[in-house]
Amino acid sequence: MTAKNAFYAQSGGVTAVINASACGVIETARKHPDKIANVYAGRNGIIGALTEDLIDTGKESAENIAALRHTPSGGLGSCRYKLKSLEANKREYERLIEVFKAHDIGYFFYNGGGDSADTCYKVSQLSDAMGYPVQAIHVPKTVDNDLPITDNCPGFGSVAKYIATSTLEASFDVRSMCATSTKIFVIEVMGRHAGWIAAAGALVADQGIPVLTLFPEVEFEQEKFLTAVKAKVEKFGYCTVCVSEGCHWPDGRFLAEQGTRDAFGHAQLGGAAPVVANMIKDATGYKFHWAVADYLQRAARHLAAKSDVEQAYALGKAGVEFALEGHNSIMPTVVRKSSDPYVWEIGKAPLSEVANVEKFMPKDFITEDGYGITDKCREYLYPMIRGEDYPPYEKGMPKYVTLKNAPVAKKLAAFEL
Amino acid sequence: MTAKNAFYAQSGGVTAVINASACGVIETARKHPDKIANVYAGRNGIIGALTEDLIDTGKESAENIAALRHTPSGGLGSCRYKLKSLEANKREYERLIEVFKAHDIGYFFYNGGGDSADTCYKVSQLSDAMGYPVQAIHVPKTVDNDLPITDNCPGFGSVAKYIATSTLEASFDVRSMCATSTKIFVIEVMGRHAGWIAAAGALVADQGIPVLTLFPEVEFEQEKFLTAVKAKVEKFGYCTVCVSEGCHWPDGRFLAEQGTRDAFGHAQLGGAAPVVANMIKDATGYKFHWAVADYLQRAARHLAAKSDVEQAYALGKAGVEFALEGHNSIMPTVVRKSSDPYVWEIGKAPLSEVANVEKFMPKDFITEDGYGITDKCREYLYPMIRGEDYPPYEKGMPKYVTLKNAPVAKKLAAFEL
Repeated sequence: MTAKNAFYAQSGGVTAVINASACGVIETARKHPDKIANVYAGRNGIIGALTEDLIDTGKESAENIAALRHTPSGGLGSCRYKLKSLEANKREYERLIEVFKAHDIGYFFYNGGGDSADTCYKVSQLSDAMGYPVQAIHVPKTVDNDLPITDNCPGFGSVAKYIATSTLEASFDVRSMCATSTKIFVIEVMGRHAGWIAAAGALVADQGIPVLTLFPEVEFEQEKFLTAVKAKVEKFGYCTVCVSEGCHWPDGRFLAEQGTRDAFGHAQLGGAAPVVANMIKDATGYKFHWAVADYLQRAARHLAAKSDVEQAYALGKAGVEFALEGHNSIMPTVVRKSSDPYVWEIGKAPLSEVANVEKFMPKDFITEDGYGITDKCREYLYPMIRGEDYPPYEKGMPKYVTLKNAPVAKKLAAFEL
Repeated sequence: MTAKNAFYAQSGGVTAVINASACGVIETARKHPDKIANVYAGRNGIIGALTEDLIDTGKESAENIAALRHTPSGGLGSCRYKLKSLEANKREYERLIEVFKAHDIGYFFYNGGGDSADTCYKVSQLSDAMGYPVQAIHVPKTVDNDLPITDNCPGFGSVAKYIATSTLEASFDVRSMCATSTKIFVIEVMGRHAGWIAAAGALVADQGIPVLTLFPEVEFEQEKFLTAVKAKVEKFGYCTVCVSEGCHWPDGRFLAEQGTRDAFGHAQLGGAAPVVANMIKDATGYKFHWAVADYLQRAARHLAAKSDVEQAYALGKAGVEFALEGHNSIMPTVVRKSSDPYVWEIGKAPLSEVANVEKFMPKDFITEDGYGITDKCREYLYPMIRGEDYPPYEKGMPKYVTLKNAPVAKKLAAFEL
C-alpha cells in the first residue's frame, strides 16, 4: 500500500477541546508516514474541501501541533454548513470525492456532531459507489453531548466543569450579599434541545447552594417556578437559577423570545436569563443579577476537564489508528467501564447507527419537580468534570497557538457553493 | 497594654480575593494574642456591628481560616450600607462606638472601597471625641480599582485576568466561525464609572485579536463606532467588542437603558452587550453572539491573579501590623517599585487623603480613537494579571470554605437600623 493523504475538518460550533482531537489526528498520522503522507485540513471546515481550499498541516511545526492540545476554538476554522441529502445535492458529494481524488486523499476524518456524522457516512457510501473508496471516520465533538452510543462527547466535560464552577462561585457571591442586596442570581447556559449543560449547574446543590435548574426537557410553568424561588429565598436567603437557553413555554416558544421591542420598534433579541430575572423581580421584588455565559463557556480552555482533554485527543488518535487497521464508516467512542474510579476506554460505533440519532437526557436524570438532578445523573456527571488540565500562561494570559494554515496549491476548477 | 478585641467587616460588592484579606487580618491577629484577644467580625458587614450581630472568628479552625485565602466572595457576609454623614446620623456612629465598647474592641479593620474608607475615617475621629479611642484601619478592596494613592485595589487584578482570558478565548472561538457564521462577539464587563476592567479586555489586541473597547470615560458615538466595527470585520473577518456596563451616550444615558418594554408593557432591564450587538446587526447584518459576565467575573477565584491574592493577604496582614505599631486612621497601600520585573511593597496612606477621592483612568491610558489602550496602560496592567494561584479542587469543583460563623452573645439593647 502506498501512502495516501488524509483529510481532516472541524465542523459546527467549536469547543475548548476540539483542537485536542486535531492534535490527536495529526500527531498520530505523523507517526505513520508509510501510510499517511500528509494531513490536509479543510479551511473553515467542509467548505474548504468543497472549494478546494486546503491547509497543509505538514507545514506546521511539531511544537505548534502539540500546542493545539491546550488551545480552544477551531484552529483550522470551522463552519455551520450542512450538506443536503444525497438526492437533493449529489453534486456536493461528488465534488468532495473529486477533491479527494485530485489530492490523493484516502482518509476522511470529520470532527463534529450529528450532522457531520451523517455527512461522513454518506461520503463513505458514495466514494465506494464512485469507485474511489475513501475511509471515512467521524471523530465526535459537541458541547451538546447529544451523540448516541458514545458515553459522552468531547467538549461537554469542559463546559460542564466551567458551568459548575462558575455557578458555584457566583452563588457564593450572592450568598455574601443577600442579607441586604442581591437575592437572585440567574445564569444562562447553552443547550437548545438537551439540558446536559444545565445539569452541570445543578451540581452546586451538593455544596449547599439553593439552585433551581430550568431544562429544555421540562415545560416552563411560571407559577410553580415562582413558588419554588420564593421557598428557596425564604429558607436560604437567596436563590440561584441555572436556565438553559432552550427553556420554553408549554406552547414551544423559548423564554428568550419575549417579543420585546426597543425604543425604535426593533425586535430586541434577549437572553433567557434577563427574562427569568425580571419575571422574579416583578413577582417578588427581589433584587437580582444575571449572567449569560455564551461563548465563554465553550471556549474556556483555562478550566478544561482533564478527562475531556484526554478523551478528545484519544478519539482523534483512535480515529487514525482505526483507519490504518482498515476500518471505515465508523466513529470512535468513549466507553465507560466504571464511574468511581472513572475508567474508560475507546470503542467504535458504525456510522449507520450514529447518523441522525439524537441523545437526550434520560427522564430519570431529572428530579420529579423538574428543577434538579438525580443521583443517577450525578454519577454520570462527576467523573467528567474531575481533574484539571491547565494551559501554559505567558504575560498573565493563556498561551494559545495560532497556526500558519498554509494553503495547498489548487488543482481543480472553481466550485460554486 | 492588655489585649483588646479586634473588629473586622467586609463592605460592598465582594471579590475573588476579599477573603484573602480577611485571612491576612485573622491569621496575623492570632499571632499576637498578647495584644489582640480575638477577632470579631460583623455578620453581613457593618450592619452586623450596628445590630450587635457579631461573629466569633475564634471558633474557626486554623484550617478554615487558611482556606479563606483561596475562597471567593465574602465569607463573613457583606452589605451595601453607607453610613450617612456624621451630621445626618450621628446616632449610627455612636452606636458603633457603643458596640465596640461593650465588646472591648480596640481595633477596627474595615475592608472595602471608597465609602467604607470614609466610614472608617469618621469612626476614628468620633471614637477619639467620645473618649473611647479605636484604631481604625481601612483595608482596601474593590474590583473598580478606583481608590486613590494605592497603586491598585485587591480584587481588580483577578477580574482583569479573568476578562482578558475570557475575551481571548471567546475571540478565538469567533475567529474559527466567522467565515460562515458569527462575526461579532460582544462581552459586557463591570465598571459603572471607570473603565479599568474594560481596559483588561483591550489587552487581547496584543494577541492579534481585532477588539474595540467601549469605556465609560468616552462618550459613545454610534456612527463612528459602527464604522470602526465594519473596518475590523473587513480586515480580519470578525470583531470583538468589550463594552463596559457604564458606557453611555453623550447625554449621560447608559447604553443599557433602552426604554425597552416586554409583551406586558413592563420595562425590560437589559445589558449593554445585547444593545451593542443588536445595533451592529441592524446596521451591518453581521451575525453576533454576546455574553454578560456579571458576578462570574468578580467571583472567578479559579482564575485569580497571583499578585492580587498576595496583595490582598499582605494588606490585611499589614493592617493589623500597622495597628499594633500604633497607627490609626490609615489605609495600607500597594506601592509599585517596578513594572518589569513586577516589584511592589506595602505603604500607607492617611484616611483623610483617601476618603471621598475617586481615581479614574488617566486620559493617556486610552488611545486617541477611544477604543483601545496605550502602552502606558499596558505597562500598568500586565504585572497585575501575571501569575496564577489555583484553588484546590474536589470532585471537579474548587474546594471553597464555608465558615461556621458562630455568633457572639449580645450585651446591648436592640438597635433600629
